[in-house]
Amino acid sequence: MKKLKMFVNGKVCKDPKLATAKHFFFPGLDEPGNTSNPLGSKVTPVFVMQLSGLNTLGVSIARIDFAPRGQNPPHTHPRASEILTVLEGTLYVGFVTSNPDNSLINRTLNKGDILAIPQGFIHYQQNVGSGNAVAVAAFDSQDPGVITITNAGFGANPPISDAVPTKAFQIDKKLVDKLQSSFWMDNN
Amino acid sequence: MKKLKMFVNGKVCKDPKLATAKHFFFPGLDEPGNTSNPLGSKVTPVFVMQLSGLNTLGVSIARIDFAPRGQNPPHTHPRASEILTVLEGTLYVGFVTSNPDNSLINRTLNKGDILAIPQGFIHYQQNVGSGNAVAVAAFDSQDPGVITITNAGFGANPPISDAVPTKAFQIDKKLVDKLQSSFWMDNN
Amino acid sequence: MKKLKMFVNGKVCKDPKLATAKHFFFPGLDEPGNTSNPLGSKVTPVFVMQLSGLNTLGVSIARIDFAPRGQNPPHTHPRASEILTVLEGTLYVGFVTSNPDNSLINRTLNKGDILAIPQGFIHYQQNVGSGNAVAVAAFDSQDPGVITITNAGFGANPPISDAVPTKAFQIDKKLVDKLQSSFWMDNN
Amino acid sequence: MKKLKMFVNGKVCKDPKLATAKHFFFPGLDEPGNTSNPLGSKVTPVFVMQLSGLNTLGVSIARIDFAPRGQNPPHTHPRASEILTVLEGTLYVGFVTSNPDNSLINRTLNKGDILAIPQGFIHYQQNVGSGNAVAVAAFDSQDPGVITITNAGFGANPPISDAVPTKAFQIDKKLVDKLQSSFWMDNN
Amino acid sequence: MKKLKMFVNGKVCKDPKLATAKHFFFPGLDEPGNTSNPLGSKVTPVFVMQLSGLNTLGVSIARIDFAPRGQNPPHTHPRASEILTVLEGTLYVGFVTSNPDNSLINRTLNKGDILAIPQGFIHYQQNVGSGNAVAVAAFDSQDPGVITITNAGFGANPPISDAVPTKAFQIDKKLVDKLQSSFWMDNN
Amino acid sequence: MKKLKMFVNGKVCKDPKLATAKHFFFPGLDEPGNTSNPLGSKVTPVFVMQLSGLNTLGVSIARIDFAPRGQNPPHTHPRASEILTVLEGTLYVGFVTSNPDNSLINRTLNKGDILAIPQGFIHYQQNVGSGNAVAVAAFDSQDPGVITITNAGFGANPPISDAVPTKAFQIDKKLVDKLQSSFWMDNN
Repeated sequence: MKKLKMFVNGKVCKDPKLATAKHFFFPGLDEPGNTSNPLGSKVTPVFVMQLSGLNTLGVSIARIDFAPRGQNPPHTHPRASEILTVLEGTLYVGFVTSNPDNSLINRTLNKGDILAIPQGFIHYQQNVGSGNAVAVAAFDSQDPGVITITNAGFGANPPISDAVPTKAFQIDKKLVDKLQSSFWMDNN
Repeated sequence: MKKLKMFVNGKVCKDPKLATAKHFFFPGLDEPGNTSNPLGSKVTPVFVMQLSGLNTLGVSIARIDFAPRGQNPPHTHPRASEILTVLEGTLYVGFVTSNPDNSLINRTLNKGDILAIPQGFIHYQQNVGSGNAVAVAAFDSQDPGVITITNAGFGANPPISDAVPTKAFQIDKKLVDKLQSSFWMDNN
Repeated sequence: MKKLKMFVNGKVCKDPKLATAKHFFFPGLDEPGNTSNPLGSKVTPVFVMQLSGLNTLGVSIARIDFAPRGQNPPHTHPRASEILTVLEGTLYVGFVTSNPDNSLINRTLNKGDILAIPQGFIHYQQNVGSGNAVAVAAFDSQDPGVITITNAGFGANPPISDAVPTKAFQIDKKLVDKLQSSFWMDNN
Repeated sequence: MKKLKMFVNGKVCKDPKLATAKHFFFPGLDEPGNTSNPLGSKVTPVFVMQLSGLNTLGVSIARIDFAPRGQNPPHTHPRASEILTVLEGTLYVGFVTSNPDNSLINRTLNKGDILAIPQGFIHYQQNVGSGNAVAVAAFDSQDPGVITITNAGFGANPPISDAVPTKAFQIDKKLVDKLQSSFWMDNN
Repeated sequence: MKKLKMFVNGKVCKDPKLATAKHFFFPGLDEPGNTSNPLGSKVTPVFVMQLSGLNTLGVSIARIDFAPRGQNPPHTHPRASEILTVLEGTLYVGFVTSNPDNSLINRTLNKGDILAIPQGFIHYQQNVGSGNAVAVAAFDSQDPGVITITNAGFGANPPISDAVPTKAFQIDKKLVDKLQSSFWMDNN
Repeated sequence: MKKLKMFVNGKVCKDPKLATAKHFFFPGLDEPGNTSNPLGSKVTPVFVMQLSGLNTLGVSIARIDFAPRGQNPPHTHPRASEILTVLEGTLYVGFVTSNPDNSLINRTLNKGDILAIPQGFIHYQQNVGSGNAVAVAAFDSQDPGVITITNAGFGANPPISDAVPTKAFQIDKKLVDKLQSSFWMDNN
């Protein structure tokens, strides 16, 4: 029977007659994520895998917690644009535009400040306040995807052949090997 | 020159070379909206008209403030699904599915609770806690639109001919006239 | 085996090799709908549930019959815009734009007259001629959905908590209770 | 000033504040088209060029009149699927599926009968009744486009080089020249 | 079990966890197609049916080989626009715009030359060089579909009733019968 | 007059009546790009900025040339999936899937081999043959965009604050400074 399982953009629709409140409900986004990790940050996604009622709705959100000096490292969402809103604390937030300009659009955001981030652009958040920080991100996809640049670049499984990052990053093979053997945390 | 102004889904794109951080930045969503009005609620939208950098991005958000017993009355978004997250307080939130079932999907949401609302479905929020309440809504459109049922139904300009609401709502002409002369607040 | 049934936007695709003329054919739209009901109107939909060949095609239609003084009450289509064409009789037709304007765009349409209705906007038709009336509506979705305002507002199952319609419609609890116990016809 | 004119999918949006009922209204689709022409048919389109309010709505319709033995010759709509409904008379209607099957899906449609036609497929209607016939077509695009096969194939301006139709149609150059100098009526 | 097979736009998604390089890999597009046929051309498609990893990606390509004087006969892609690039040889390439203009947009393309072809428009390529020719076409759909005009027009199964092509092509029944009994090669 | 210039997804439509063959034609993709640069590669894009007729068509291509040991460094296309086909030589090609798997999907491609690359995923090509190599990439967007990881990460203008790459890449500030002052070639 296993081969009868289907994947339609990652999620099979329920019979609409069977949908009840629990398919559209998700609790506990007020609970801080555990930031006791090297990045000092934690993402709590509410995507279609967590909230099945989002299927076909085209929208999702995530909560992001930051310890002091915590960072949500440079990443992209391959299938969504984002609006980031700071709920608590102070974040240094930016994105870089595509070639050839690679302009850095950045801002220090305080509580209540918002930055819009175009689809697929590399962006990051860094806690630059003295306490914890919290942000909420909204996406125009039920399944935005997350690609952390360092994880995909140096933590791929299996690793990318040395010749690629050596030339791309203009660093020597020794450093590439060190980076590829590092622990690349996935804070999602 | 006025007739040269163009509207492309309500918003003309800027020359991308001229885009700077300020086009993607919006401040002050931490400021409570003024709920001193008959509905006891206030919506602060961050749509493309408020944040021009959202143009073509397909995402937007809004903050909703509630005084005690305040209500965001039954409404729809003609061009977007929604994820509603309670930031503070306790809200009774629901939506009604389309014909023929008209099932009420409802929940009492506390801080951190989320309800997903399919595109175009009638939904509402009522503050059922003892204090103020705050929620944030995310949408999969840069311009979701808002249709408050009572405002469109009884506050249209000019009013809809009596015969329509009389029969539709099964109420007499006198009540229709009274409703049409009422003040229908737009809390957006 | 029942749980293997899948719903992809409400309809599973047939193997294209097995498609024959009968999947694309629907008869009898010339037959008047039965308008012997309190609304004096009847909608005959030709959506994907009635005509399976519409699956993935993104288009559908409906016939609407009106007895004298019959009404297709205020409703929305959450997933489609509409073109309404009068085939017989005289209809008073209108839609209301979204907040904040809530402008009523209305017309008395005679045979051969057309009104375009944007996606998700509340609209209605009322027979204002002396005889029967017939209209055909075309939609840009194979599954437009129908939300009758009164049915969703007062006929939801279970009913919406009194506090919501009482405040929203500025009417007393007694009237709300009466309306919620009324029979809300679904003419679809 | 001429170079300031813009074309956004063929149509510039009006300032939404200026939209009135006349932009959404189109009269006279009950008037028969003039079928006194070699094809014995006439299409009356209600596309965005005829009804400006359809802009961004994604839907359009057309009326098609047929004299006895009249034909709407094989054609495609490059940007829309279609639902064809017979209002009067009897039509032989068909479409051909794509390679490699090229299955003919055809039906004789009487008043009230419907055939769905997938996007871009070649289709035609032929009046096989004793009197006039009328049909209405609905499309999931505000600008479906029409490509009459013979007009594009033999009436292109300038004509396609002889070598192409000679080989493609397996006919001699003399017949190609004759066909290319024929009058190919555009009944749209 | 057969009836449990599903078709979602022609292709069922694999469980993403099971995807490996082989689902995204397709070899041998450098091998010339066999042009020993009446058309003197051969299309080698790399659509989602040939390369399952294209599912949901919205892009596909094809290689087209031409013997001297070979032709890819007039055809359309119902679900995609195309960019045609000549890799070897010299092709006379054109497309015809939709009604009412039916303008022929044509060019003689040499190695390295490109022509863009809008979705659903009739187009063709003819080898007008002295040797073989090769082109590659790119499409904005994983399943563009191909409709060869002559095959759909005269090679439909079953054949279209004589009355239709006789009137449409302004040719006599005898020629229609001859054309309908011809062998219409499918070079895809 | 300058402020009247409009940008509709980066490109204003021409009046369709004025479109001629030259708007759909692009020459010279057979000419090798100049790979005399540190990356040993050169991309020649045929996007809507280079070929205006692609506007609204949703498809584009690019040629990529590689000197021996040349590399098209890790990059993404924020708005398109890709099919890469090797025309000459031997390329080591790969992409990395999104979090949490970060699986490397890679292959050594010879002439005629193809790899499909999902939208927004980081991918690269490295010439691992003894001579030059050439590939052609097809995209399902008229304006795919290109984000070279190193250029956006270390060559942004102005540079990203040190604290971000230091923590993200687990490298010291000295190396970050060195990388940020390096010359990051844009081979597009």
